[in-house]
Amino acid sequence: MAWAAAVASCPVSSIVDFSASINPLGPPPKAIATIKANLDRLIVYPDPNYTQLKKILADYHNVPVDYVLPGNGSAELLTWAGKELSKQRVTQVIAPSFSDYERALTAFEANWSKCQLNLADSAKKQKTPLADILSFEEVIPANAGLLLNNPHNPTGQIWTKEEILPYLAKFALVVVDEAFMDFLSPEQEQSVISLVVKFPNLIVLRSLTKFYSLPGLRIGYAIANPAILQKWQKFRDPWSVNALAAIAAETVVRDKEFQQRTWDWLPPTRNHLWQGLSSIGGLQPLTSSVNFLLVKTAKPSTELQLELLKKYQILIRDCISFPELGDRYFRIAVRSQADNHYLLEALSDSYS
Amino acid sequence: MAWAAAVASCPVSSIVDFSASINPLGPPPKAIATIKANLDRLIVYPDPNYTQLKKILADYHNVPVDYVLPGNGSAELLTWAGKELSKQRVTQVIAPSFSDYERALTAFEANWSKCQLNLADSAKKQKTPLADILSFEEVIPANAGLLLNNPHNPTGQIWTKEEILPYLAKFALVVVDEAFMDFLSPEQEQSVISLVVKFPNLIVLRSLTKFYSLPGLRIGYAIANPAILQKWQKFRDPWSVNALAAIAAETVVRDKEFQQRTWDWLPPTRNHLWQGLSSIGGLQPLTSSVNFLLVKTAKPSTELQLELLKKYQILIRDCISFPELGDRYFRIAVRSQADNHYLLEALSDSYS
Repeated sequence: MAWAAAVASCPVSSIVDFSASINPLGPPPKAIATIKANLDRLIVYPDPNYTQLKKILADYHNVPVDYVLPGNGSAELLTWAGKELSKQRVTQVIAPSFSDYERALTAFEANWSKCQLNLADSAKKQKTPLADILSFEEVIPANAGLLLNNPHNPTGQIWTKEEILPYLAKFALVVVDEAFMDFLSPEQEQSVISLVVKFPNLIVLRSLTKFYSLPGLRIGYAIANPAILQKWQKFRDPWSVNALAAIAAETVVRDKEFQQRTWDWLPPTRNHLWQGLSSIGGLQPLTSSVNFLLVKTAKPSTELQLELLKKYQILIRDCISFPELGDRYFRIAVRSQADNHYLLEALSDSYS
Repeated sequence: MAWAAAVASCPVSSIVDFSASINPLGPPPKAIATIKANLDRLIVYPDPNYTQLKKILADYHNVPVDYVLPGNGSAELLTWAGKELSKQRVTQVIAPSFSDYERALTAFEANWSKCQLNLADSAKKQKTPLADILSFEEVIPANAGLLLNNPHNPTGQIWTKEEILPYLAKFALVVVDEAFMDFLSPEQEQSVISLVVKFPNLIVLRSLTKFYSLPGLRIGYAIANPAILQKWQKFRDPWSVNALAAIAAETVVRDKEFQQRTWDWLPPTRNHLWQGLSSIGGLQPLTSSVNFLLVKTAKPSTELQLELLKKYQILIRDCISFPELGDRYFRIAVRSQADNHYLLEALSDSYS
């Protein structure tokens, strides 16, 4: 952001940030009120068992309490998932993928390879079935791991629970990062959390910072077999979740009003933005199930990024960090109607 | 604490907690004011480089900025130190030692052994020279690590910088946990931070949560050669320090008034408590350089702990988690004059 502000010759606060996929409706007022009311918790160590938080998360997902482990953002739990996957002979990662996966896997010298999602195909069919990326017929070695992201970042597509299910029998360990699953309403979500009790080889990672707009607070959790989570708890430091993150998390997952408001807001706002992008020659947005859109661009994304920053103080996410995407794609968050309109005007101008 | 409150039949807030070694003068009012004024930082990701915080910590310790890595409490950095030490053929740990050392070493299957500090000796001489614990004459294998705690927890004794210096030539990697060093004034402290630039095999761990009474916030840092810290930064998740911890840390290390107030308060208050303990038959406090005292007890510490909880709602730290100490020692924090007086009365009563 400091870099973007320098390019745009403006303060950081003036940047219209479409690069981070954070819910623009948040943070929930109750979260901030809870934090303010609990600052006196800072003078004591957090409960290393996070008993209260685990109970609330377990109730929310309808799993036994020992199937839950809160973390310092889901990124911390991804680290331990990386350590777990490093014990597999090989781990398949659906690509393009969040760059932090590579970090967690290489930290523990995991042996891993990529299964490519065909983007041209995704754009045409709106979605690439998981079986097209990772064939059921393929011979999977014993002790193989699978790391996938559902909904998928950066495409925004989602696989159904039924599509994922057969892979649980094929792989020794399956890690599903559901960082953006909260953005789908209960009728539409495809979480595999309910399968965790049946499949001891399944680890689900969840984030609370994107949906509830609290990335500075650091809070996520894993849902998996207690044998795995107890091991992680022994690896890591005892107080990994700060006291304010713990209390805010307890509040937000019970904030049904905020959840419903986001579910009501997102689909029409995203559709409107998608339509606007589609109508600009040179741009082709992919269909998304979540709060961001991947957009194919005729102009190099790095060039477009600089232009939008300099002329409009708008920051988009170039996709250079995804090697499969190169400079022909950019990603944008769905923001308020006003911000989205401003972006569409800027893009129309740039492509006119 | 929930356990203690249940034993004492009182709310957690009524417990007079001598078990956690937290500065009773804190948190500094400026820290809380800074947190309140910066709650809007929660809606953006922390700067993964922690540029501003690193600069302030580097200035504070007079080291180059790339020799600093902030962490989610020093406990997170201990995890990475454990990974680093696991690559050594063997690591020597001064015992008794903080139980979290064993956690970090076993997480990465490090090969380690203990060098025993003779407690009876320490009580007599007030301090055990490091050379008595780990002889210079001892043949140290190539690629050996050393993990020590200075000032030492739980005894409270301190080794001089000059005592530690020769071990830097003898060991391939030396990790010095200086979690309590802040409690000594600049004239008395014995930090090895100034040696870090000269010794690329030295890692110093520091905590900000004990001196500044912010254990719920989670903030510490490592000072070491950039080659080591860059590796850790790649292992761990990019946003390990939450935004409020980062901004509070920037504030507290520059709070000279709070630091001076603590340095003025501690020695006479600790001496007074030490004298009071010494005058009780059956108790023998060790000499301490920091904000806690290890006390030898004629009565089993677990029995004493229960008695103090039930009768006085006072919580002391039994030392059962230190296998070398068993039930003949307990540890107490130095608290306010009033609290210390209350503890001395309770102990006098218990031992009369």
